[in-house]
Amino acid sequence: MDNIVLAHGSGGRLHHELINEVFRAQLSNPRLDQLLDAAILDLPSEGRLAFSTDSFVIDPIFFPGGDIGCLAVYGTVNDLAVSGAIPRYLSAGFIIEEGFSLSELKTIVTSMRQAASQIGVEVVTGDTKVVGRGQVDKLFINTAGIGLVPAGINLSPGQVQSGDQIIISGTLGDHGLAILAQREGLAFSTPVKSDCGSVLRLAQALLKVDPTAVRCMRDPTRGGLATTLNELAQQGAVCLKVEEDRIPVLPAVQGGCAMLGMDPLYLANEGKLVAIVSPDRADEMLSVLQQIPEGQNACRIGEVQEAPRGIVLLRTALGAERVLGMLEGELLPRIC
Amino acid sequence: MDNIVLAHGSGGRLHHELINEVFRAQLSNPRLDQLLDAAILDLPSEGRLAFSTDSFVIDPIFFPGGDIGCLAVYGTVNDLAVSGAIPRYLSAGFIIEEGFSLSELKTIVTSMRQAASQIGVEVVTGDTKVVGRGQVDKLFINTAGIGLVPAGINLSPGQVQSGDQIIISGTLGDHGLAILAQREGLAFSTPVKSDCGSVLRLAQALLKVDPTAVRCMRDPTRGGLATTLNELAQQGAVCLKVEEDRIPVLPAVQGGCAMLGMDPLYLANEGKLVAIVSPDRADEMLSVLQQIPEGQNACRIGEVQEAPRGIVLLRTALGAERVLGMLEGELLPRIC
Repeated sequence: MDNIVLAHGSGGRLHHELINEVFRAQLSNPRLDQLLDAAILDLPSEGRLAFSTDSFVIDPIFFPGGDIGCLAVYGTVNDLAVSGAIPRYLSAGFIIEEGFSLSELKTIVTSMRQAASQIGVEVVTGDTKVVGRGQVDKLFINTAGIGLVPAGINLSPGQVQSGDQIIISGTLGDHGLAILAQREGLAFSTPVKSDCGSVLRLAQALLKVDPTAVRCMRDPTRGGLATTLNELAQQGAVCLKVEEDRIPVLPAVQGGCAMLGMDPLYLANEGKLVAIVSPDRADEMLSVLQQIPEGQNACRIGEVQEAPRGIVLLRTALGAERVLGMLEGELLPRIC
Repeated sequence: MDNIVLAHGSGGRLHHELINEVFRAQLSNPRLDQLLDAAILDLPSEGRLAFSTDSFVIDPIFFPGGDIGCLAVYGTVNDLAVSGAIPRYLSAGFIIEEGFSLSELKTIVTSMRQAASQIGVEVVTGDTKVVGRGQVDKLFINTAGIGLVPAGINLSPGQVQSGDQIIISGTLGDHGLAILAQREGLAFSTPVKSDCGSVLRLAQALLKVDPTAVRCMRDPTRGGLATTLNELAQQGAVCLKVEEDRIPVLPAVQGGCAMLGMDPLYLANEGKLVAIVSPDRADEMLSVLQQIPEGQNACRIGEVQEAPRGIVLLRTALGAERVLGMLEGELLPRIC
């Protein structure tokens, strides 16, 4: 059988075959292999848990730099990582359209396994539903993740103070533009790849410098850096002021954005970290990030002011200053 | 605005309004209200965690006895409950079709809140995606759940022994037949309602009698009791022998099944518990269940034999004995 049929989601015999031959074949571990209704997890007796979830509905499901499988792992892992947690366990819920290719599903699950093993997380529990043709577009994946937050780590926009520095781990807009280009059939002379990847090493490196000097971290996905900064400004009741010409954007992304009338500050990223850090440790933190391959383009892009509270100000390359608002409307549906 | 638009899933302004006005309006709690990328949870320093996930794609989303919202809460809570855990925290991931009614969404989220507060669990983290018309059928919900497994509780099919008794908490097939009847526009003289509900009280009551006398528990959802028993027989490498005339089925469900050529043993349940228990405590456990409203029709339906291993045997009302196989094919897509 080369394609998914409704009976693969029935709970019955074919369902069990799918679980064994596709999911367990790749993701096997002692907890998943128990095949209980819930995975039973031993956790260290100290610390707190971080718990997060994301559904992935990206279109196309295969794109330059990744696919929906590794994205579903990195996306949830990154939400845990920016909370200061060490990701440990994932759940995976698949909703599959009848007729979907079984070999594509295997490729996607293999990609999940590779991403998970690179990070050191395990998929320990899962669920598969199959719905009729036309009732879902190909494949959606939900992951939820559990991480451990070591004692002494308390990241929150409420910790942000005037004078704190804003750091970004690399170039912006790569994921958004890569998806858009593929969807619209655009070709650039320099192909743009999604930055789909883990920010765990970056986040842990910053915390290792000094956990109290890291005020808070985020990964600027949907809505882009502009939306993430607005959330932080509102939640922290501070003003974030960033300088446009310090924000790293690949020339190909810049060019693609100019052509399409897009702003890279609103495009999704899937492997970038924004950190707000204490000014006295900012240089050290920046240099720590730059020594990690996925952080080599890390930059300091601005700083925190007391007022106007809840606002993001952008100092443009020409020296003007304007409010950088949250995303209005929807630039790119199904970007993640 | 009365309907969901793509921008409700953008990460931008409308997205934040949706989160505040629909999700937080109903589900607010100190952990959710932090609006961090991951919820941070304090947990007692002892015991283990149970972790489970389910996606809900049921059609229709409103049905006699419930809706997709309470089902998404009960479904995951029940997976935790039958693992011996006390459910604590849920994540909720919504995938919504553009144009979906905002007021129906509010009704569904209200139903989630009522189910969660009845059980004592909190939705602490979530995600919302909106996809274009025709790319998903109305609304899918994924929930993942974390529960605490007290020390001394170790439920597993591996514990099942010859002579153990098989108990079911109530009538079978109610959910499956209720959905089928509504979908097909069938009316029965006695309307059949879904049994959509929590099995937590039932599971906890059994464990309170004697945690070591409860070998394992399951909730027979997709694939019905027959499929669940087959899983247990295979995983425990035992034979489960059940007696058809002891299995409780409502007359209306029996009648509906006869008319439609369905077998209630393969129909989904969404609020029933199967327990395999030590023979010396079986009477006491049965009577404990029968004192709880949702367990009033609890029955002992059979027992465990050593051989033939991995097989479920059904003794029919006429006294014949036959193998009760796992579900083949798919009776009812999108039953949960």
